[in-house]
Amino acid sequence: MAKKVNIGLIGCSFMGKAHSNAYLSVSKFFETKLEPILKVACDLDEKIARAFQKQWGWQEYSTDCREVVARDDIDIVDICTPNDTHCEITLAAARAKKHIICEKPLAMNVAEAKKMVNAAKKARVVNMVCHNYRRVPALSLAKEMIDSGELGEIYHYRGFYLQDWITDPSFPLVWRLKKEHAGSGAHGDLNAHIIDLAHYLVGDISEVVGVMETFIKRRPLPAGVSGLSARGKKKMGRVTVDDAALFLARFKNGALGSFEATRFALGRKNGQRIEINGSKGSIVFELERMNELQFYSGADSKGRQGFRLIQVTEPSHPFIHGYWPPGHIIGYEHSFINTVRDLIDAIGSGKRTVRPSFEDGLKVQKVLDAVEKSCRGRRWVKV
Amino acid sequence: MAKKVNIGLIGCSFMGKAHSNAYLSVSKFFETKLEPILKVACDLDEKIARAFQKQWGWQEYSTDCREVVARDDIDIVDICTPNDTHCEITLAAARAKKHIICEKPLAMNVAEAKKMVNAAKKARVVNMVCHNYRRVPALSLAKEMIDSGELGEIYHYRGFYLQDWITDPSFPLVWRLKKEHAGSGAHGDLNAHIIDLAHYLVGDISEVVGVMETFIKRRPLPAGVSGLSARGKKKMGRVTVDDAALFLARFKNGALGSFEATRFALGRKNGQRIEINGSKGSIVFELERMNELQFYSGADSKGRQGFRLIQVTEPSHPFIHGYWPPGHIIGYEHSFINTVRDLIDAIGSGKRTVRPSFEDGLKVQKVLDAVEKSCRGRRWVKV
Amino acid sequence: MAKKVNIGLIGCSFMGKAHSNAYLSVSKFFETKLEPILKVACDLDEKIARAFQKQWGWQEYSTDCREVVARDDIDIVDICTPNDTHCEITLAAARAKKHIICEKPLAMNVAEAKKMVNAAKKARVVNMVCHNYRRVPALSLAKEMIDSGELGEIYHYRGFYLQDWITDPSFPLVWRLKKEHAGSGAHGDLNAHIIDLAHYLVGDISEVVGVMETFIKRRPLPAGVSGLSARGKKKMGRVTVDDAALFLARFKNGALGSFEATRFALGRKNGQRIEINGSKGSIVFELERMNELQFYSGADSKGRQGFRLIQVTEPSHPFIHGYWPPGHIIGYEHSFINTVRDLIDAIGSGKRTVRPSFEDGLKVQKVLDAVEKSCRGRRWVKV
Amino acid sequence: MAKKVNIGLIGCSFMGKAHSNAYLSVSKFFETKLEPILKVACDLDEKIARAFQKQWGWQEYSTDCREVVARDDIDIVDICTPNDTHCEITLAAARAKKHIICEKPLAMNVAEAKKMVNAAKKARVVNMVCHNYRRVPALSLAKEMIDSGELGEIYHYRGFYLQDWITDPSFPLVWRLKKEHAGSGAHGDLNAHIIDLAHYLVGDISEVVGVMETFIKRRPLPAGVSGLSARGKKKMGRVTVDDAALFLARFKNGALGSFEATRFALGRKNGQRIEINGSKGSIVFELERMNELQFYSGADSKGRQGFRLIQVTEPSHPFIHGYWPPGHIIGYEHSFINTVRDLIDAIGSGKRTVRPSFEDGLKVQKVLDAVEKSCRGRRWVKV
Repeated sequence: MAKKVNIGLIGCSFMGKAHSNAYLSVSKFFETKLEPILKVACDLDEKIARAFQKQWGWQEYSTDCREVVARDDIDIVDICTPNDTHCEITLAAARAKKHIICEKPLAMNVAEAKKMVNAAKKARVVNMVCHNYRRVPALSLAKEMIDSGELGEIYHYRGFYLQDWITDPSFPLVWRLKKEHAGSGAHGDLNAHIIDLAHYLVGDISEVVGVMETFIKRRPLPAGVSGLSARGKKKMGRVTVDDAALFLARFKNGALGSFEATRFALGRKNGQRIEINGSKGSIVFELERMNELQFYSGADSKGRQGFRLIQVTEPSHPFIHGYWPPGHIIGYEHSFINTVRDLIDAIGSGKRTVRPSFEDGLKVQKVLDAVEKSCRGRRWVKV
Repeated sequence: MAKKVNIGLIGCSFMGKAHSNAYLSVSKFFETKLEPILKVACDLDEKIARAFQKQWGWQEYSTDCREVVARDDIDIVDICTPNDTHCEITLAAARAKKHIICEKPLAMNVAEAKKMVNAAKKARVVNMVCHNYRRVPALSLAKEMIDSGELGEIYHYRGFYLQDWITDPSFPLVWRLKKEHAGSGAHGDLNAHIIDLAHYLVGDISEVVGVMETFIKRRPLPAGVSGLSARGKKKMGRVTVDDAALFLARFKNGALGSFEATRFALGRKNGQRIEINGSKGSIVFELERMNELQFYSGADSKGRQGFRLIQVTEPSHPFIHGYWPPGHIIGYEHSFINTVRDLIDAIGSGKRTVRPSFEDGLKVQKVLDAVEKSCRGRRWVKV
Repeated sequence: MAKKVNIGLIGCSFMGKAHSNAYLSVSKFFETKLEPILKVACDLDEKIARAFQKQWGWQEYSTDCREVVARDDIDIVDICTPNDTHCEITLAAARAKKHIICEKPLAMNVAEAKKMVNAAKKARVVNMVCHNYRRVPALSLAKEMIDSGELGEIYHYRGFYLQDWITDPSFPLVWRLKKEHAGSGAHGDLNAHIIDLAHYLVGDISEVVGVMETFIKRRPLPAGVSGLSARGKKKMGRVTVDDAALFLARFKNGALGSFEATRFALGRKNGQRIEINGSKGSIVFELERMNELQFYSGADSKGRQGFRLIQVTEPSHPFIHGYWPPGHIIGYEHSFINTVRDLIDAIGSGKRTVRPSFEDGLKVQKVLDAVEKSCRGRRWVKV
Repeated sequence: MAKKVNIGLIGCSFMGKAHSNAYLSVSKFFETKLEPILKVACDLDEKIARAFQKQWGWQEYSTDCREVVARDDIDIVDICTPNDTHCEITLAAARAKKHIICEKPLAMNVAEAKKMVNAAKKARVVNMVCHNYRRVPALSLAKEMIDSGELGEIYHYRGFYLQDWITDPSFPLVWRLKKEHAGSGAHGDLNAHIIDLAHYLVGDISEVVGVMETFIKRRPLPAGVSGLSARGKKKMGRVTVDDAALFLARFKNGALGSFEATRFALGRKNGQRIEINGSKGSIVFELERMNELQFYSGADSKGRQGFRLIQVTEPSHPFIHGYWPPGHIIGYEHSFINTVRDLIDAIGSGKRTVRPSFEDGLKVQKVLDAVEKSCRGRRWVKV
């Protein structure tokens, strides 16, 4: 573990925290090929940047991401900023020949995503989009099982991602609810995850038809932006993204897909649920119980068949050897540790490639865009 | 309980059994206004009719449904035959001024359903379509809760009905897999249920877009029909109905719906699952655990919120006073007992009307037809 | 099904209802060797007896159980009365050479139970104690699995039966809370069930140590018995049975047992839960989800092990062929139908024996008594 | 966070790893009063100590715990060694006036535990026994709820801790299976946890009666110790601890307790389960789903009662503000982070006291010893 790899983190909010913890922990839990050094943490807001640097033990902080990206001593640029900045930062990082990991969704649209793919390709840098759920051990196991044929031919993919954090109409009009910053609402935020998992587990999607809705069309402006109107009421603004986005899909291999993302499912906090039915078996995954994978095997003997609850905490399961004994669960943050492990091992081993790559991110973007087009045109659209 | 009501049952298969048991038990568990008499059981196949009559204690058997329908001593005609005969038998029964209960789906298409509605209306007889799940106590309770506003404004209806009985490609080409007899496959058989429940719980559907698939396109002819080909292989025939049918919907009240019916979900035996999210609460129902209703209330105090598992076995819950103490569950068949109870009480009380009526059945048929049209046209279709 | 068998039912309360329904339905769902005839329903209270006879379709009613037991046209005496009358009625029925089914617990104590066993033996009549849970299909399946060695050598039996119906201190002092009528509280009522299941599934118990408690020691006298005291307060009486009874056990085969019965587990309505761990596998059963059996098999391949949820609704599962298709669940009452089926088939086939017999009931009584002795002596007691 | 606190870790195995991670992360997730410095990691085996130091980023390593304990620059001694060394190291650390955190069970017996309590008291150092489960947020929440009266008077505590890692008879005779090193088997290892939780949640235990068993009495000697006998068979040795230990208990407040620890429950990996029933509510906790707490409230309205699944991931829940948004779960290791946070905050704030203290550890030891005495004497024993 002699060799180091220096990280420049852009964006010090929720994802910045998850990524910092991953860099901090990865070489403790795993024998990595390189040791990540928390070099610079960067945020537009200096107060945030400074506090974050101190809290998470970054060596320096910065408020200028261009400068960070260009520094000679930075090896990996890690992009944790809002969606509308991903493309620009990526292009700068690629020009500077940095390896790049970028939060999802990769871009605001297909056009941006293509630029990012091309820039990374041209620069010949390792590039990864942070679809961290691929490395939840239960989903990595699901992938192994599907690849080895344990589920047979796939007939159905059912992916849901249900949350409830904006159900209250008085929840303010934050940037995530404005199209210019977020691109879309539940669609890009949540569907992006379950589309990527569909690609990972089932394969490419050929066509889609969808529907989107904004249930609460106007919301109070957030504190700072807002103010009271002449009549003493809070000023309101228009929500310009979707609250919910559902779509049906056909996969190239003949499977059918059903996708649903919403922020209006009261009681569902992080309610991602994946069910896949194949000719030989079925699996079910629920993110809030992410250490478990349900598996129904058609090969079990007659009268003894049933969905079995695999606790994905055995040393033989993906990533688990780095952590704890059977039955001692890991949490949300470990999906980032696992992701970062594979990123730096790809760099350290000279493999130069790791999935999900920007190509994978582009593929997600194509589906996201096709769904939006379908919603406008009210008909099926090829991806 | 002095007055009797005589039943003529048409069709002595699975549904005939469920209905017979209901007539047998209903006046034991409940104080009904009329006592049902198991008068005549009718099936085209005499052997079946005779055995069934003996087994279930019907007073007589018949092989001629026209004659049964016309008998003076029959008060209720109960139609448990394949879908392609519902219309004809209904018309005959209405002409004879009999009350009618008919298995679902009501008809082969909207045209037939309309004829049936009109005939029943003209004859002024009590008419009911046997969507028995409305009277699973947990779903009746859900209805009460929604009506009383406990869920608030409804945003999402998620209805699934997953089975796996024809996943095996060597499963034979039975009548249910032929369009001329069954009308459709999973669509009419399973979606009919979750559409009716959507109407019951949420309201009318305004438009739909769907997709259907037949995964296994050719199957061996069933024993009796089949034979060996010249080369010693089993003769094959074409499947002419859908194996799976999915659709998205908009409700008139603004809610979004997601529906899925399939016979290719390995491990799902009778996997009906309903989730409804509203502005004040959410509910989840699973048919295989039909004595339970999950309920999330936004009104619970902070830090104590969560989906609670209501065991719908309390005397205060719908229909339960007739059965057993708390925690002593009832089964599938009780949904028919409850249905029949309300049918004969409607007749006995002179109310002359009970839901779901043929009108309700027609409404389901309209949605089923709209989905089929949408699948052909590959676009959204108004109901 | 030509031959009939006439039933005389003694006791028209909760159990009388469950048994009546079983006699009514058993020859409908199954091809039984004899057809049960609901001949006479008997209750001390004429009003109750008459109403019950009418409701459940018994041919006659009576208030004199001696007379019923002695009638020539009665073949089976079915005892559904309070515990303190089981012995006397059994002795009379045996003298009259009637087959007998008796509700559990068999007797008030070992001495009574022995008399009953001897009387039945001497009379050479079929005798059965109604431990109906043995014939919940999931538990019958568990028995098959254990007998065939699928669980290997048994190490642990964990049996709980948790209810909450007297948690409220204002719940009145009903007969079940008085030792002279009920013999004991949760102990005889609930432990009797899980002791019988332990015998059925694991084997004989060699020694026990226990503890009992009465949490609420005085309760209001029930309406009718009660009255207001001079000061206008409700009159109170002493609870003379246990509210909860727990014990540890050693089985003859070396397994350890843990038993708990309580009426003070708020939220548990009919919370029977059995877990058995063996050298090759484990099972879990929960009565409120009685159509399910959880099974962990050590023989499953590495990385794919887990408790699997067997829906015990397949035609290959015990008793299910008589009922509905896979996934269509049965309820509490079906355990009685299954019990009665085996009783009348034992009579009809001339086998003259069926389990659990009075001998089995006596064995339960011996354990119940040993636990009571242990509680008094505060030490381990041999059974 | 200016001030530092230097840690000396004794023992570099499983617990050493969990504690190292806690020191590494605690000041990242929380604003702690002191910043822990990973000063020296100590293990008897130099190879292990060196590798561990490097892996987890300790500044130094040592093989001499006496020297570490005596170093001036060590503030906290953290004892993660086998049970038979806890006492000696503690006494040395106390003499050197170091704050001490010691893994559970605190000691080999009551006599040792008393010495440790006295030494710590005399030295006036902060002392803590690492019963980490008290700081699983769901259990901390349970404590809050019980303290605030939400469960009312407690009637039942049901604690189980089921594992299966030595079910295979060919599993070798490791040190944990020898009385001289481990003190006891499942009893001290697993019952210690659920006894401490009982003290935490319900109160003091007044008397106990128990049973222990060693199912597999002889096992192969472990590699290194073992060898082949003359006949080519593996040499066997005697297991001198319990495989399973069960006991019943009375609490001082009148509640009844049921405890079970076993390593022979096939399929149970880390199967800790706690159920508490009170006069106003009940809770259930399962360690393998440690982010959830089930809660039944008797105060819920009629017909809407049921166990609700609280996801203990809200910012208002104990410790959660340091981590992730709702529904994003934490894992096993976070219980150690939370424990260490409170330890160093107790030191930093000058409070000098934190629970569970050595006194609490002694109290657990008294119950453990009383159970052992009860098993020998085959009768109830006062604690």
